[in-house]
Amino acid sequence: MSEQARRIPADDLRAFMAQLFHAAGAPQGAAEVVADGLVEADLMGLRSHGVMLADMYIERLRKGSVSRGESATVVSNRHGAVVLDAGHALGHVTGARAMDMAIAKAREFAAGIVTVRHGFHFGAAGRYARQAAEAGCIGIAMCNTRPLMPAPGGAERAVGNNPIAIAVPTDGDIPIVLDMATSEAAMGKIRMAEKAGEAIPESWAVTARGTPTTDPAEAIKGMLLPSGGAKGFGLSFMIDLLCGLLAQGATGPQVQPLYGDFATPYDCSHLFIAADVAHFCDLAVFRQQAAAAAERIRTGARAPGVTGLFAPGEIEWRRQQDADGVVTLDEPVATMLARYAGELGVTAPFHESTREKRHA
Amino acid sequence: MSEQARRIPADDLRAFMAQLFHAAGAPQGAAEVVADGLVEADLMGLRSHGVMLADMYIERLRKGSVSRGESATVVSNRHGAVVLDAGHALGHVTGARAMDMAIAKAREFAAGIVTVRHGFHFGAAGRYARQAAEAGCIGIAMCNTRPLMPAPGGAERAVGNNPIAIAVPTDGDIPIVLDMATSEAAMGKIRMAEKAGEAIPESWAVTARGTPTTDPAEAIKGMLLPSGGAKGFGLSFMIDLLCGLLAQGATGPQVQPLYGDFATPYDCSHLFIAADVAHFCDLAVFRQQAAAAAERIRTGARAPGVTGLFAPGEIEWRRQQDADGVVTLDEPVATMLARYAGELGVTAPFHESTREKRHA
Repeated sequence: MSEQARRIPADDLRAFMAQLFHAAGAPQGAAEVVADGLVEADLMGLRSHGVMLADMYIERLRKGSVSRGESATVVSNRHGAVVLDAGHALGHVTGARAMDMAIAKAREFAAGIVTVRHGFHFGAAGRYARQAAEAGCIGIAMCNTRPLMPAPGGAERAVGNNPIAIAVPTDGDIPIVLDMATSEAAMGKIRMAEKAGEAIPESWAVTARGTPTTDPAEAIKGMLLPSGGAKGFGLSFMIDLLCGLLAQGATGPQVQPLYGDFATPYDCSHLFIAADVAHFCDLAVFRQQAAAAAERIRTGARAPGVTGLFAPGEIEWRRQQDADGVVTLDEPVATMLARYAGELGVTAPFHESTREKRHA
Repeated sequence: MSEQARRIPADDLRAFMAQLFHAAGAPQGAAEVVADGLVEADLMGLRSHGVMLADMYIERLRKGSVSRGESATVVSNRHGAVVLDAGHALGHVTGARAMDMAIAKAREFAAGIVTVRHGFHFGAAGRYARQAAEAGCIGIAMCNTRPLMPAPGGAERAVGNNPIAIAVPTDGDIPIVLDMATSEAAMGKIRMAEKAGEAIPESWAVTARGTPTTDPAEAIKGMLLPSGGAKGFGLSFMIDLLCGLLAQGATGPQVQPLYGDFATPYDCSHLFIAADVAHFCDLAVFRQQAAAAAERIRTGARAPGVTGLFAPGEIEWRRQQDADGVVTLDEPVATMLARYAGELGVTAPFHESTREKRHA
């Protein structure tokens, strides 16, 4: 498939992905939310959280390890604390609703903390943190994954590359959001390299025996390395406990491999925190000051040869602007999607869109 | 001074430090709290947060940039959100009280968030996170510092090495607490190296021109490097905004150099979060599960030559156990303390304590 044929308007890709997930068993509304989350990630250049995940999502929907539910059940609800049971429903759907609840709790109590047990993959954590920031709240989202990284000095997987995202309200055009995995690199990026047949940097992972590797297949069988050594390890360990123990859900090795047996629920735990800025200070002033702080970063002195400095979230935003509403699929991803389109009787948009869009 | 003469029982050192701070102008109660915090840090091997800070604290008390107040004033108090103005009082004192308020708010609302403007150095952030964990809460403490680290690709200081500490309740003997600066190394450690006349690793800092250095003096004039590159930078930037903007206190370059003009207030901002575990789940079960998770880390498979694996907080706890109630002061620190003892008319414990204590 030519590169031009793989350039798909985001609206078309979003509609197609929703059709695929719906055909695979997801309710229409849930399918649309997941499609939007994955395409948004692709537009932001977060390809490991994009439509490349579709085969895994679809196989899990087919085999029942991702439920067809559209909402989580409330396990407990005390003041600003909520525990939800997502029942293995699509994480993009339960994640957005959980953060909505956290925001509502923050309005009432200043801070809301919503924990989720029996969760499924929710895509990029930054999406939920931004959701809170857009509502005038500090937003924090975390989740745990199965163990992928050794403790410092360890020879076995001890903690996941558990991500954390933090966003704050701003009155600038560019969202201020940190979205980081606690590993040096994301497993999804290693899978992308594997799908693309490319080598990975030595700093990303070690083999199962703890030796260096640039082979993504060896890395997937081996261990990711934590960012900053003991610091990334420690942060990941605490995220695991915050997500899994408060929700009385899975922690550590209780979380299953995302790409393991597709009939076995992933069973991760999520944590969403919102704090309503207006309970602390004037929200408009906060927004202006946050935008100014980000501007201070991007206008700072640069080292020789550096063309730009970026506040957290800016690179993803710029990629989204540059994408100009078009996602260029990688060849293996396009092939995978075409295969599922055939299997599920959905018309792929790959050959309908041949018009070129100029980048802004 | 011999090494034996510099081995001081912690109780004696604590009493001596309290006398020093009180003689320098701190109220008796505040002096005792600060002395306890500094000596505790030394016992944990966190020497950069220990009594080596005394000269800076004393000079600031003398010159008035650290106030003699013992409590912060409440700027606002809405549901679970509190904004305090510490009025440049000793940070150990206002920090402990702020976390107490966060814990009380967490009891009432599930989560409490207390922000502090016009704060002073509060020592090791882990102390406040542990305070919450001991009360059955998730505890999170953060503060900002003046800019010390460049943005990725930057040639000027853009963010502090803003620390974050996270602790959870446990029923084990060993506290579970992460306490990390967002730099590869702490500026205090570089100052320790300078006082000890030692070189520093190249990964810790760059010169003011952005070039590598192993000279602590050059590093102090230069820039710390963030842990994990963009991740440590991003985390630090978000901590700065969370601390400074919610409190409507200082952020970024508004925070003053700790070792700059001692007549100018440091003016950092603090943030304390407590979440009452009992509002989410059974606290006893949580404590047991947290202890088991830490045990899983320390009993994991080890790489060849590695003698132990540690959950976050365990190394500091083991150092404290090994210290067996005795702090061995570095020569330059002992000399500094002896000088202030003379100036302030306080009797130093250095020559009274010559008995040897065996390590456990």
